[in-house]
Amino acid sequence: MTQHNTIFLVSDRTGITVEGLVRTLLTQFEQVPAERVVRPFCDDVDKVEHVVAEINAAAEADGAPPLVYSSIVDTELRDRLKRSRGQVFDIFDAFLPALSKSLHMRSSDRVGQTHGIGDYEDYDRRVEAVNFALSYDDGARLKGLDEADLILIGVSRSGKTPTCLYLAMQYKVLAANYPLTEDDFLEGRLPDPLKPYKPRLFGLSISPERLHQIREERRPGSRYAALPQCRQEITAAENLYRTQGIPFVDSTNMSIEELAIEIMQRVGVDRKI
Amino acid sequence: MTQHNTIFLVSDRTGITVEGLVRTLLTQFEQVPAERVVRPFCDDVDKVEHVVAEINAAAEADGAPPLVYSSIVDTELRDRLKRSRGQVFDIFDAFLPALSKSLHMRSSDRVGQTHGIGDYEDYDRRVEAVNFALSYDDGARLKGLDEADLILIGVSRSGKTPTCLYLAMQYKVLAANYPLTEDDFLEGRLPDPLKPYKPRLFGLSISPERLHQIREERRPGSRYAALPQCRQEITAAENLYRTQGIPFVDSTNMSIEELAIEIMQRVGVDRKI
Repeated sequence: MTQHNTIFLVSDRTGITVEGLVRTLLTQFEQVPAERVVRPFCDDVDKVEHVVAEINAAAEADGAPPLVYSSIVDTELRDRLKRSRGQVFDIFDAFLPALSKSLHMRSSDRVGQTHGIGDYEDYDRRVEAVNFALSYDDGARLKGLDEADLILIGVSRSGKTPTCLYLAMQYKVLAANYPLTEDDFLEGRLPDPLKPYKPRLFGLSISPERLHQIREERRPGSRYAALPQCRQEITAAENLYRTQGIPFVDSTNMSIEELAIEIMQRVGVDRKI
Repeated sequence: MTQHNTIFLVSDRTGITVEGLVRTLLTQFEQVPAERVVRPFCDDVDKVEHVVAEINAAAEADGAPPLVYSSIVDTELRDRLKRSRGQVFDIFDAFLPALSKSLHMRSSDRVGQTHGIGDYEDYDRRVEAVNFALSYDDGARLKGLDEADLILIGVSRSGKTPTCLYLAMQYKVLAANYPLTEDDFLEGRLPDPLKPYKPRLFGLSISPERLHQIREERRPGSRYAALPQCRQEITAAENLYRTQGIPFVDSTNMSIEELAIEIMQRVGVDRKI
């Protein structure tokens, strides 16, 4: 029997938390044949009733109750959602009472600011970190590098830029990056501008095959992209990391998130929650 | 009575999902006086037992059971965590059985790849989107602009760059941005390079006071940062959006996430889950 399912993600704000939850749950299944419907900013009766109508229509069409994952703070709106023909799982319902009890605090029942601007100061620090990552991308700038929380090093296309931007965007980390080139390898030592910052350096490595594949996309058939070249650069980079005692990670099978978290953990950069 | 609490966030992967959950829950309380401890990559008995020991030590020190939010797929590891002196809430425990039942599918109990690399294709599209946002930042490039899923426009420092980078990083959206300048306002029309792409344009606005504050940080005392200048630019930008029929949003009280989600929704860019 092939049954059609619909999964609704409903939130009074962005829905990013519910999105993360559903993604995580779905990793536990092979190819889920369910349509995903995301409905953010459902913060009044009209919007919630509109979604309820959509859920009911899907229940009718599917011949099965849709799964509804929600983060809706207002209990009246949540109750309306629960009166739909969907099977509703709300994260506040699931976790808030126990948290409230444990903290000996009452929850405010106000729409949250998880992914809201919070305060300007917080926003400003975040944008500042993004601008820092952009200014100090690929060794573009050296003046002021001592402000960096960490400096990623690695050969071209090993994942430095997206990782720095992610660290900045999500964790307000001031992350610079600096490319390792053949000249550095010939010298067999750290590029001069990096020497004062050795404790903040972190190396990226990657399998030569994967690097080859990435570089081929960019410059097909070039010496730059050739497998022997990639192999040579990676060997030299890892040698440099080892001889200089610089921690490093192989990014081949890691996502940007995994790289960011691993690096923060190993460098000891605080991950504020 | 001031009681000290500790909240543990434990995951077999990055812990980003649990982080989002806990952040969302904590928005419901004023200033939670609880220490947060994040423990990612707890994917074997040793690592879990290490965290169990930390939880038990915190229970002893706090005189109260720590709250433990976890995402641990392996049931044996999860059970070990639950035998700690913490009050454990695992998202798989909470949501997986019902999901499994509804989908008529068995879950795999394998460590997930929510924030894992998944497949190279996915990673590549993401990095491509980030590179696109970088190449097409602030009108830096026009050739190939027709590949953009959307083009953000707005005055300097209205939030274009971080929003584009976020859209690229999280949703693989090809987002370009183009600055509106005084010349454009004098002409009272769209910059020429943008004319072919009108349906993909989205405007950012911001309160003059907030823009003034942001620009002052950057160039204190300048004409650029002066409040009358900010006021004039914002009025002109909003006039342009209205006369040209370009949708726009006021970013003053919005986070980067909220901007990104709102824009995707209004432009009709698919938010793949």
